[in-house]
Amino acid sequence: MKAVFASAHDADPQAWIDPLQAAVPEVAFHAWNDTGKAVGAEIAVVWNPPPDLFSREPGIKAIFNLGAGVDALLRLPGLPADAVIVRLEDAGMAVQMAEYAAYALVRASRSFDDYQRLQQQERWEPRPDIRRADWTVGVLGMGVMGARVASALAALDYPVAGWSRTGKDIPGVQKFAGQQAFPAFLARTRVLINTLPLTDGTRDILCRATLRQLRPDAYLINMGRGEHLVEEDLSALLDSGHMRGATLDVFRQEPLPAGHPFWRDPRITITPHVAAASLREETITQTADKLRRYVRGETLSGVVPLDRGY
Amino acid sequence: MKAVFASAHDADPQAWIDPLQAAVPEVAFHAWNDTGKAVGAEIAVVWNPPPDLFSREPGIKAIFNLGAGVDALLRLPGLPADAVIVRLEDAGMAVQMAEYAAYALVRASRSFDDYQRLQQQERWEPRPDIRRADWTVGVLGMGVMGARVASALAALDYPVAGWSRTGKDIPGVQKFAGQQAFPAFLARTRVLINTLPLTDGTRDILCRATLRQLRPDAYLINMGRGEHLVEEDLSALLDSGHMRGATLDVFRQEPLPAGHPFWRDPRITITPHVAAASLREETITQTADKLRRYVRGETLSGVVPLDRGY
Repeated sequence: MKAVFASAHDADPQAWIDPLQAAVPEVAFHAWNDTGKAVGAEIAVVWNPPPDLFSREPGIKAIFNLGAGVDALLRLPGLPADAVIVRLEDAGMAVQMAEYAAYALVRASRSFDDYQRLQQQERWEPRPDIRRADWTVGVLGMGVMGARVASALAALDYPVAGWSRTGKDIPGVQKFAGQQAFPAFLARTRVLINTLPLTDGTRDILCRATLRQLRPDAYLINMGRGEHLVEEDLSALLDSGHMRGATLDVFRQEPLPAGHPFWRDPRITITPHVAAASLREETITQTADKLRRYVRGETLSGVVPLDRGY
Repeated sequence: MKAVFASAHDADPQAWIDPLQAAVPEVAFHAWNDTGKAVGAEIAVVWNPPPDLFSREPGIKAIFNLGAGVDALLRLPGLPADAVIVRLEDAGMAVQMAEYAAYALVRASRSFDDYQRLQQQERWEPRPDIRRADWTVGVLGMGVMGARVASALAALDYPVAGWSRTGKDIPGVQKFAGQQAFPAFLARTRVLINTLPLTDGTRDILCRATLRQLRPDAYLINMGRGEHLVEEDLSALLDSGHMRGATLDVFRQEPLPAGHPFWRDPRITITPHVAAASLREETITQTADKLRRYVRGETLSGVVPLDRGY
């Protein structure tokens, strides 16, 4: 069985192929190359795959994604309707999401941004103590990422709720499930943290109609995808004073173009899509395991239902 | 039985006395007053008490401290050698310490300070992913505060060790106990977090001889007391490049005086002694409970052995 490896993860594909080849000898791995020569692959191992993947390799039956989000892959032209799509689960990303969210939340709740400004002015001015009850956290998406984010913030004694399509029971986290529970979830939430996958159902979910239902003085942390956020709606709600700030890791256009108003907005903290990187060794180990299970016809986790889209 | 209440916590002592009085009717509470009139108290409830407390109230047998650190109280002139000193335990402070430490650690490990500078220049430049194994955390002091700090950072998958006089077993935290284990603890630690109480044995513990034993590119987070740190030694190790930075909440002189070199040092983050504030309601509830137990002759926790000093 042949596999083609096409990833923007690394300039050196052989550094991925060699350990995968050693771990899964049943498969012959070939690097995607720019000469246009087909491999005749049944399997693709990909991250940000080239748009002509399926036209060059029409025999592909299974695609192993070296990341958790498959939205870009699902938009690829010629994706076979019966393809098995397997995505990465966790691989060291969930804890990074958790600490990113904790950092952004605590910076806001504990006024670390104020203290930074005061230091520059050599001013010693303690801010009033906070009441944790005033800092209700709501996590959108209760997958491996969202669940870990919610647990980590609940462990810091913040009142945390989690919302997802079907709901998930996590100790110390209030459960909200489905569309009918969305308004109640928003109404109790001041700090909204997005970890949703991007699908047709979640695109633009962080719009004016959603954000205005948050508690006053709201804060947004977006670690999902740029297309979740209607950027001008966030700016409008910051201007109106309903929201106090945002920490954004993802944007509709990446890299965020020079001159974009977010860059110079002191209420917005920007990071360049670094909230969670899949860790190389864990990614290789997990992908090799999934590949072995696929080749042997065993059940494997992380298979994406195409109709659900994540 | 009479009690005198003398606290710099609040401009309105009655706001503390009223709930204490309601919770402990066996004791008659009186506010310390500036007219110099004695109460004839057997009990003192204090925070930053006045220096003439014991000369005016020589009958004091028990002192309830509205904070965890009793170093200032133990330095008060005329402290009776057989006084029962009871300190606050936790009262909402441990979780604040944990989130303060997590914030400072993650800001350094995940380069959030770099991203802040890059945003000001409108530059999109992801930093290399971190290896958690490179960010070994060592917590000094394994009391209620230090234990919670260590647990919280271990939950974020950092390699965490804890050092204390007698050692403490905490799941996921490597234990180091006593002076003979101190060099080994320092040698494996890159991020040193101080939560020690201030005693004659810990004063100046964060000196050149200690800090130079840390792993290269070390980082210091001081949430203990200013007198733990030899300030010029930190500056020297930052200048030499052995240390990369520090987040300091406490200082030898507070407020940190204008013109102090720390204010303008870009490698040092300053907060005005706010890492952990005892929460009013939890403080009152806990102090009332300890007072009741004392009056009834029951055992109570938080009693400070005078020879140990914390």
